[in-house]
Amino acid sequence: MSSLIDPRVLKGFRDFLPEQERERQGIEATLSETFQDYGFVPIDTPVLEYTEILLGKGGGETDKQIYRFPDHGGRDVALRFDLTVPFARFMAAHVQELYLPFRRYHIAKVWRGENTQRGRYREFTQCDFDIVGVDTPSADFEILQVIEGSFRALGIERVRIHLSHRGVFNRFLSRIGCSGSGGEVLRIVDKLAKAGEESVRSMLEEVAPRESVGDILAFVRAEASYEATLDKMTRMAGGEGEDTERLKLLRAYMEELGVSRRFLLDPSITRGLDYYTGIVYETFLDDLPDIGSICSGGRYNNLAALYTKAELPGVGASVGLDRLTAALEELHLSLAHKTATEVIVLCLDDSLVGHYHAIAARLREGGLSCEVFPQKRKLASQFAYAERKGIPIAVICGADEHARNEVTLKDLGSRASNEQVPLVQAADAIRAMRQRPEV
Amino acid sequence: MSSLIDPRVLKGFRDFLPEQERERQGIEATLSETFQDYGFVPIDTPVLEYTEILLGKGGGETDKQIYRFPDHGGRDVALRFDLTVPFARFMAAHVQELYLPFRRYHIAKVWRGENTQRGRYREFTQCDFDIVGVDTPSADFEILQVIEGSFRALGIERVRIHLSHRGVFNRFLSRIGCSGSGGEVLRIVDKLAKAGEESVRSMLEEVAPRESVGDILAFVRAEASYEATLDKMTRMAGGEGEDTERLKLLRAYMEELGVSRRFLLDPSITRGLDYYTGIVYETFLDDLPDIGSICSGGRYNNLAALYTKAELPGVGASVGLDRLTAALEELHLSLAHKTATEVIVLCLDDSLVGHYHAIAARLREGGLSCEVFPQKRKLASQFAYAERKGIPIAVICGADEHARNEVTLKDLGSRASNEQVPLVQAADAIRAMRQRPEV
Repeated sequence: MSSLIDPRVLKGFRDFLPEQERERQGIEATLSETFQDYGFVPIDTPVLEYTEILLGKGGGETDKQIYRFPDHGGRDVALRFDLTVPFARFMAAHVQELYLPFRRYHIAKVWRGENTQRGRYREFTQCDFDIVGVDTPSADFEILQVIEGSFRALGIERVRIHLSHRGVFNRFLSRIGCSGSGGEVLRIVDKLAKAGEESVRSMLEEVAPRESVGDILAFVRAEASYEATLDKMTRMAGGEGEDTERLKLLRAYMEELGVSRRFLLDPSITRGLDYYTGIVYETFLDDLPDIGSICSGGRYNNLAALYTKAELPGVGASVGLDRLTAALEELHLSLAHKTATEVIVLCLDDSLVGHYHAIAARLREGGLSCEVFPQKRKLASQFAYAERKGIPIAVICGADEHARNEVTLKDLGSRASNEQVPLVQAADAIRAMRQRPEV
Repeated sequence: MSSLIDPRVLKGFRDFLPEQERERQGIEATLSETFQDYGFVPIDTPVLEYTEILLGKGGGETDKQIYRFPDHGGRDVALRFDLTVPFARFMAAHVQELYLPFRRYHIAKVWRGENTQRGRYREFTQCDFDIVGVDTPSADFEILQVIEGSFRALGIERVRIHLSHRGVFNRFLSRIGCSGSGGEVLRIVDKLAKAGEESVRSMLEEVAPRESVGDILAFVRAEASYEATLDKMTRMAGGEGEDTERLKLLRAYMEELGVSRRFLLDPSITRGLDYYTGIVYETFLDDLPDIGSICSGGRYNNLAALYTKAELPGVGASVGLDRLTAALEELHLSLAHKTATEVIVLCLDDSLVGHYHAIAARLREGGLSCEVFPQKRKLASQFAYAERKGIPIAVICGADEHARNEVTLKDLGSRASNEQVPLVQAADAIRAMRQRPEV
C-alpha cells in the first residue's frame, strides 16, 4: 500500500470552507455594488507579472517579501504583492483605449512572504478603488463618500474616517526647518495611535531638533472640532494654501451631504508612504478600535510615472478584505444569505428518483433553491444531513403521495409538518411556512 | 530623465478591461446562482500549494507546464494547474468538518506554462462543480441537469450534452481482448470527433489487433437514438450490467423531466484520463460546433486516494470560462448589465460641487447608479466622456436651477431634454425617460 501525502496547506495560506467563502463573496458583492453605484467599473490584471514591473525602482520591504522566480522561458517573474503597481502598469498600457477620469475597482488576491507570527496571511485579498485623471476636491470627496457608503452598505454605521493632507504637513515641516528628515518624521508620526505620544516623542528626538519635536507633536494633535484643527494646521503651516482650502471645501461638502459626523480631521494621519501628495485617510471602527485602519488611502501625483510619460494624478483607497471579514465576524454582521439551500427533497424510494428531480425542478421554477438527496438512506440520517447544512424545509414523497401527486412538507426547525400538499401548491406552501416564524 | 519600464504583460497573460471584466463577472454570477439553486456551495483554496500535493505521483504533461519554484523558506511550491487536485486535498483535509454528500463549486484562476501558439492562455479561469460522497444514478443525473440548467441560465438553449459510460467501454474492451491497451484505445477514440474515423482507424491499428479495430469503431458509433445506441453497447459489452442499467435510468429521468432532447448517448466520448470510472460527458454548442467541448467531466471512484484513506466517490464537471466567454461573445449574448452607470451629474460650476454630490446621493437613494463629473470642463467634453462610457442620462444644474431646486435631464442617446424637473422628482423622471424607447 502506498503512503499517503499529508493534505496540508502552506504556512500563511488557508482554505475557505463554504460558510467562510459565502461570507467573503457576500462582502465582495456588497462592496462591488456600492462601487458600481458611484460609477466605478471593475478590471482585472494577471497574478504573475515581470518582476521588473512589480518592483520598479525597488529597494523596500517588498523586495524581500515578493514571490519571485524564473519561469519556463527564463523570464524573471513574480506574484503581485499589491493591486496598485499592477494598476499603474495597466493605466500606462491602456490609457489610450480608456477615458479619463477613470474610476476603477479591483478585488483580488495578492501575495507577500511575510512573517506569519504577526497573525498575517501570505495570501490575502485586497480591494482597491481609485479615480484617476483628475486632481479636484470633488474627486477627493467622492472617495471619502464611497468609503462611508461602503461601510453603510456592509451594515457598519459606527465608523470614523480620519483624514489629513500631506501638503499642509510638508509646508509645516519646511517652515520649522525639518524638510530634510520629513519622510522619517511622517513615518514616526504615523505610529502615534499605536505607540503613544511618549514613544513617538523619543523617536522624533532622534531625527529632529529637540525644539521642533514639541511643535510636531502640537501639529499632529486633533483639536475639539474639524474647524479648530484646520485653523491650527493653517496657522502652523504658515497660512492658507490650496491644501487648506481643499480641506475646507471637503468639510463644506460633508456638511451639505449630512455626513460630517463620520469624518475627523486628524493631522497625525500621514500614511507612511512617500507616494501620497494630497489628502490621506484611514478608517476606524468605533466598536473595534484595536484592529486598526480597515480602509486607507490618499491622493497621489502621478500613478504610472515608471511606465509612461502621461501624467495620471489620482485618489484612491484600499480595503483589507481579510481584516474587514474578521471585523464583521466580531460584530456579528453576516453578509452571506442566511440559507444557501432552502429546500431538500428526501429520497424514500429508488423508483421515484426521477420524480424527486421533477419536484425539485418545479420548486426551482417557483424561485426556491432546492437539492435532491441523492440516495436512499434512513430518514434520520437524511434529516441529520439537512440540519448540518442548515436547510430549513424538507419535502417527503413516498409511493402513496406520488400516486396522489402530493407531497409532505416538514419544517426542520419546528418539526411541524404540512401533509397532503398538492405538488402544484408546494412552492407557495413552502414560502408560507418559511414566513411563519416572523409572523 | 530616467528611462521608462515597458508596461507589458507576460506572454499568455492578459488584462481585463472594464467591459470584459463585467462580462466575465456576469457569467460567473449566473453560473454561481445556478449552482446554488441546486444546493452547491462555494469553496476556495490557496493559489500556491506544496508541489508534492499538486503533482501527486506526477509523470504527465502537467509536470512540464506547472509554475514551480522554491519559496522563501526553501519549500518546493507551485501554482495550481487545475481545481480538481486542490479539491481532492481539500476534501482529505476537511472531510471531518463537512457533511456528505458534499456539493461544491469553485470558480478560480489556474496556471499552465502551455505553448501559447495554440491560442491558449497561461492564466485562465476554471469553473468546477462536483457531488462527492455518493455513487448513485441520482447524483449522476443531477450533474447533467446542472450542466443543462447552467447553459439555459446563460441564454444558450441550443446545447447538446454527449454522454457515455467508461464501465461499458471497459467491459467491451475486455470482451474483445483489448483490456491491456485499454488506456491507449480510450485516448485514441477520444480524438474521433476532431481527427475523423480514418485517422482514428490507423492509430488504433497500431495498438490493437486488426480484427478488433472494426469492432471498436462499430462500438463507438452513435446510433439513431439513445435506445438504439444503448442496445448496441449492451450487446457488444456482453449483456446488461450495473453500467448499462445506469444509462437506462438516466434516460428515464431525462424523459420524466422533459430534457431528453439535450442529451445524446455517444460511446466515442471517453475523456482520455484514467481518472474516470463511470459516466463521462462533453458539451457542445449547436451553433459553434468547432470550439469543442465547453463543459466536460464524469464519475470517478476515489477523489482523494493520494491524501486519505476515506473513500470519496464523486461525479463532477468543469467549464472552461475563457472558452465559454469567447462563445458567448460569438453568439452575441451579453451577461453584463447593459449599463454600468445610469446617470452622470455634470459639473457646470465649481461652487456647486457639494450640490452635485447631493443630487447624486439622492438619485442613488432612488435606486440609480450615478456618478459626478469631478471637475469643470466644457460641456462638450463632459458629454463625450459620458458617451464613451455608455452613460445614458445626464443631469445638468447651473446656478439658476440650483436656486429653484430643479435640474435639467438630458437623454444622451436621443438628445431629448427634460427641463425644470424638481429635484425630488428627478429619479422618477429619469426612470420614465429610460423606459421611453421600449414603449
